[in-house]
Amino acid sequence: MSALGVAARAASRLMAAAPTAAKNTALLALARRLRAEGPALAAANARDLQAAEAAGLAGPMLDRLRLTPAVIATVAEGCEQIAAMPDPIGEITGVKRRPTGISVGQMRVPLGVFGMIYESRPNVTIEAASLAIKSGNACLLRGGSEAFHSNQALAALVAQSLEEAGLPAAAVQLVGTTDRAAVGLLIAMPAYVDVIIPRGGKGLIERIAAEARVPVIKHLDGNCHCYVDAEVDLDLALRVVDNAKTQKVSPCNATESLLVHAAQAAAFLPRMGAVFAAKGVEMRGCPRSLALLQGVPGATLVAATEADWDTEYLALVISIKVVDSLDEAMDHINRHGSHHTDAILTTNHPNAMRFLREVDSASVMVNASTRFADGFEYGLGAEIGISTDKFHARGPVGLEGLTSMKWVVLGQGEVRG
Amino acid sequence: MSALGVAARAASRLMAAAPTAAKNTALLALARRLRAEGPALAAANARDLQAAEAAGLAGPMLDRLRLTPAVIATVAEGCEQIAAMPDPIGEITGVKRRPTGISVGQMRVPLGVFGMIYESRPNVTIEAASLAIKSGNACLLRGGSEAFHSNQALAALVAQSLEEAGLPAAAVQLVGTTDRAAVGLLIAMPAYVDVIIPRGGKGLIERIAAEARVPVIKHLDGNCHCYVDAEVDLDLALRVVDNAKTQKVSPCNATESLLVHAAQAAAFLPRMGAVFAAKGVEMRGCPRSLALLQGVPGATLVAATEADWDTEYLALVISIKVVDSLDEAMDHINRHGSHHTDAILTTNHPNAMRFLREVDSASVMVNASTRFADGFEYGLGAEIGISTDKFHARGPVGLEGLTSMKWVVLGQGEVRG
Repeated sequence: MSALGVAARAASRLMAAAPTAAKNTALLALARRLRAEGPALAAANARDLQAAEAAGLAGPMLDRLRLTPAVIATVAEGCEQIAAMPDPIGEITGVKRRPTGISVGQMRVPLGVFGMIYESRPNVTIEAASLAIKSGNACLLRGGSEAFHSNQALAALVAQSLEEAGLPAAAVQLVGTTDRAAVGLLIAMPAYVDVIIPRGGKGLIERIAAEARVPVIKHLDGNCHCYVDAEVDLDLALRVVDNAKTQKVSPCNATESLLVHAAQAAAFLPRMGAVFAAKGVEMRGCPRSLALLQGVPGATLVAATEADWDTEYLALVISIKVVDSLDEAMDHINRHGSHHTDAILTTNHPNAMRFLREVDSASVMVNASTRFADGFEYGLGAEIGISTDKFHARGPVGLEGLTSMKWVVLGQGEVRG
Repeated sequence: MSALGVAARAASRLMAAAPTAAKNTALLALARRLRAEGPALAAANARDLQAAEAAGLAGPMLDRLRLTPAVIATVAEGCEQIAAMPDPIGEITGVKRRPTGISVGQMRVPLGVFGMIYESRPNVTIEAASLAIKSGNACLLRGGSEAFHSNQALAALVAQSLEEAGLPAAAVQLVGTTDRAAVGLLIAMPAYVDVIIPRGGKGLIERIAAEARVPVIKHLDGNCHCYVDAEVDLDLALRVVDNAKTQKVSPCNATESLLVHAAQAAAFLPRMGAVFAAKGVEMRGCPRSLALLQGVPGATLVAATEADWDTEYLALVISIKVVDSLDEAMDHINRHGSHHTDAILTTNHPNAMRFLREVDSASVMVNASTRFADGFEYGLGAEIGISTDKFHARGPVGLEGLTSMKWVVLGQGEVRG
């Protein structure tokens, strides 16, 4: 593992100094090769799929493992989109003359080497490689063992594309996927790895965060809230809360909990409950909300327990609570939420501003669906992940999350007195 | 300790929402109290000094412990300067309309709670408190046990000043300084502490970084270089290198190693050596540099070993090496340096630009003394510390290092399709 680390560190120096044109050439070459090598990729993927079926893997895991023509087309297009983005590296900002005569500013540079740890999806190999190339970093990739042959085949195309562009093949290296100890080594080499980005279940991510000896850009829960304020456009609130809960229930930015101001509860909850009932959304309510939802035909109503306020369902379930003030709503969100994404539905400007300032979440929204919390929706062009931490990067993380700012000082022979 | 953590977390929510005027009121009240309470502070400090003398502490440690009127005047002035700075919190930047209709931007918010671990200097208590107040964070302060009474007296003034401004006294709390296990607890409470900032010797900082379960803003070595390029104004280079090495030898931004291009070595080194000899600087050179320095009257010359290239002397000692190219110089710096601060002396523009881009250090300089690497010299107004990491903050860290950016989304009822 440390041999891989040494090679990655050396490659990272060349990548940091690589011209933008060379990085884009590598990305476009990779897109071309992905499209041209469809049959070879399918053959490698078939070996993984056969082994996974033989091992009795569940259907959803097989789906994630499958490198279909559509998946390949999507990652190839992703490479082209990243090639078309501005190069984040080399940007110099804020240069100001100081009284001593020196000029001081900051230059954006790559972090160096990142390690990515992920599960069965082989397409993450290409996503990580393309982000590394554009951001001038090297990376060490640790995919799932079930995707071994697929990842090998994809990594070979990445290496060829890097070499075609005159860049070091060691900028993107696979870490032996069969050795379970490899993850433990990868996350404990501060000399060779600058940051770890895990993707996968909460258990995996918590374990990595607990054991890592380098920084981790991590995403844990998405217990997101919509709060319907005392002054509100009810039709707008119905539309947004419906979308936030039901448009897709599995993403982390789907709403899990609805808070309604007492002044609107009687007008809002029966209508909202009818929408949820029609879509088969189970409602776990506080006593006041259940009393108002009682008459909704076909509603599945359950009394909420304390645990419900802390739960990310990722399912057709929502917890509902009536609150008496904006302060109570914000207290509830800051206490029970996961600091991911929370929205207020309101027509009251001071309340909107207070919610934006005082709710301690990575994304705070006014009159918009929590489902918008996403790197592409935010215009980042590419998303490395979503951070639920505050340090370094918060919320959707784009290419800039793989960079840092160094100081540049331009002098004419100044000395310190 | 977790009771302190709970109180800090609760106080941090109030501090995050505190008006700028209240934070400035607290800072100005603190400055006023520090000036007014000089005799009481001196009495508390005298108790610490007596105990330290009785325990046989060395002279420099006693000096650091001493709360002289000059030290008190300096920290009081620091509070006023921080009060006069713009509030970093609440700044909203980069708001852009997206094709979906939502507007997306970022708002600067406090990190939450920081822990500071430091040694004998009691003035750090006030520096940390004032930075916490202005940045809207809460903090837990763990000073040296030898400064117990001084820190108690200072913290009481901080608490009074916070209360005078209507802010929570628990925003700044001292952690029991006599319990050795306290540090271990403080650095392992991710639920209550968002970042740890250690100040002190390298051993302390390495131990904290190794054991912390939360992010650490840390500073390790300052093995800084000056590189004299093939095309250079020799008088300028002499002046800058002299300043970088000798103006003050103990700070981390003092130069420890001099690299000279072979084309200038014969012209430059004898003159530089004469300056160093006159100031009593010991020169540890490679064979080529020693040959050129041989004739300098009064020079202390020593053959450099491999270890010298990696050594931060913090003394009147410098290592010297003749190199054959800019690439060799940059390779040497990236390999042996500590990624802190490195300078090129050159008149060649492409070489200056390559040095800025390719030297992987927190501060890279052209024709300026490495001694400028400092938050005040860079115009940050206040310095929390200097980071030798790349993650989150690099180089001198100002108030912004105690903040992060959250996303704000402003909609008119948009939903995701």
